[in-house]
Amino acid sequence: MLETMEKIMENTAGAIMTPEFVRLRADMRADEAIRAVRASGLDSDAIYTIYVAGADGRLLGTLEMRTLLAAPDEAKLDSLMDTAFYAVKTDDDQQTAAMLVRKYDLISLPVTDEAGRLVGAIGVNNIVDVIEDEDTEDFERMAALVPSEDDYAVSSVWTLALHRLPWLLILMASSVLCAWLIQSYEALLLASAMGGVMVSNMPMLMDTGGNAGSQSSTLIIRAMALGDLSPRDTGVALGKELLTSLICGLGLGAVNFLRMVWISGNTKLEAAAISLAVCLTVIVANSLGALLPMLARLLRIDPALMAGPLLTTVVDVLSLMILFGLVTAIA
Amino acid sequence: MLETMEKIMENTAGAIMTPEFVRLRADMRADEAIRAVRASGLDSDAIYTIYVAGADGRLLGTLEMRTLLAAPDEAKLDSLMDTAFYAVKTDDDQQTAAMLVRKYDLISLPVTDEAGRLVGAIGVNNIVDVIEDEDTEDFERMAALVPSEDDYAVSSVWTLALHRLPWLLILMASSVLCAWLIQSYEALLLASAMGGVMVSNMPMLMDTGGNAGSQSSTLIIRAMALGDLSPRDTGVALGKELLTSLICGLGLGAVNFLRMVWISGNTKLEAAAISLAVCLTVIVANSLGALLPMLARLLRIDPALMAGPLLTTVVDVLSLMILFGLVTAIA
Repeated sequence: MLETMEKIMENTAGAIMTPEFVRLRADMRADEAIRAVRASGLDSDAIYTIYVAGADGRLLGTLEMRTLLAAPDEAKLDSLMDTAFYAVKTDDDQQTAAMLVRKYDLISLPVTDEAGRLVGAIGVNNIVDVIEDEDTEDFERMAALVPSEDDYAVSSVWTLALHRLPWLLILMASSVLCAWLIQSYEALLLASAMGGVMVSNMPMLMDTGGNAGSQSSTLIIRAMALGDLSPRDTGVALGKELLTSLICGLGLGAVNFLRMVWISGNTKLEAAAISLAVCLTVIVANSLGALLPMLARLLRIDPALMAGPLLTTVVDVLSLMILFGLVTAIA
Repeated sequence: MLETMEKIMENTAGAIMTPEFVRLRADMRADEAIRAVRASGLDSDAIYTIYVAGADGRLLGTLEMRTLLAAPDEAKLDSLMDTAFYAVKTDDDQQTAAMLVRKYDLISLPVTDEAGRLVGAIGVNNIVDVIEDEDTEDFERMAALVPSEDDYAVSSVWTLALHRLPWLLILMASSVLCAWLIQSYEALLLASAMGGVMVSNMPMLMDTGGNAGSQSSTLIIRAMALGDLSPRDTGVALGKELLTSLICGLGLGAVNFLRMVWISGNTKLEAAAISLAVCLTVIVANSLGALLPMLARLLRIDPALMAGPLLTTVVDVLSLMILFGLVTAIA
């Protein structure tokens, strides 16, 4: 948790901005501005966006170098600059900065302090690195890995193992829940005529639930990361997921019923019980896969962490409870 | 497969390049070049990299606008330009272009035809979109989703379901293999004194194998996507994975042994059999998780496709075979 808090502090716009940028006055002419830029001697991408600021340091507008170059010599900067610009504050999240650069095809993004005074700029190349790092972190969290700063090629075997063992141990411990659940239903499994069918279909049921949950959670986590799913869309998305899970659950249940009766030679009652379990498991797994990342965002936990590794275990336990509950009800 | 082939054709550098760029002669002076750029009236990011080409259209060097602006009036372009530039061919992969832009902090990347003649340029903002699209595709493929071009927010429930059902059905069908395997060992499960222990620990074993495989495959797929793992590093990476899997397998097996003996009250023989199965499963799953994406790359299949959805099913079947094989050997 401490690591998460430190991460949040580190991942601010202020941490990736550069204090190098070109700041000019609004009453300058285009040719004067070009001379001023050339005289600045600045040799970085920050040069491609000129920031027009007032005497108090407050940002009035931004001017793309390409607009300045295309303008006639005598045009004043205040007539060329874009006053409807995007800016981030120093303590805004890096992902906010990345989203703005991506959405509006920016080359550089201004960073201001609380009072709106210009303090730095973030170049698009920094944003490319932020995007890849954030995506890598999501990939790793969703695969139950402790995120690593190091590239794979330079990581030692010990480092690799130490980033894998914590979650493997936690998840192994939590799937012992499944063992206890099965043990407590052992009498049912041995006594019921359906015992054999239940045991042999357990992996199929748990896998299908896990796959359905991983599908919906991945889509929701990705949509959040790309800014395609704002908090106020949550209700609509949950409704969509419920309907989608109904279609998938019914479809998979039906196919499983036909498979068990026609191919595996089970009775219709056996096939119906297992297929209903498949259908309910898919609905529960799919809905949880959508709900957990949304809850995580509300609680300010990384959605990738909550939905990836934990979801599988929760879905496993729930799918077994559905199966045992159904067979108990029928028997 | 056809969809994959079309995708490959679509995802070339040629498909995202723009034919708009500034091409100047090598013997121009810096001040002439700036005037020429201004006269071009070009109003896009492509303006930030100037391409210096010979009379035959072949690219001689690239010149960042920032370097041009910082240069003295009388400097000739051939003394300013960078002759050790990066370029892609029209039929190169978009990911190659993305990797170059990311690695060398480029604002624009030249695209040449087979003869080395300049035909277009790719701006960094296009690359940002390519990176996000490629990452989204990897996330989707690894979560057993048929990749979709549409954003989540605008996808209908039917579209969502249709992108999920194909893989859910294929994976459900393949996990029926587990059902057959369990059925064919039903006599062993019922007769052996270890039957109950085997059944109740099956989910834990399969989950742990799945988690270990998903960890290694995610790391390898991501390292490949970021260009951190070239084909000639394959041998070293496989060796690393084997060692890492040994550490993880032994660690998890040991913890499981202690848990079964101390907490779950199993006999030492039972605990030893299941723990050995855990250890072997982790080693196999981890190694396969690394091997499958590498094989996929060799076969020119998307590694994310082969390692994500298929790996779980393969690991499930193998973990059961290891468990049943071990108990048969002991009994």
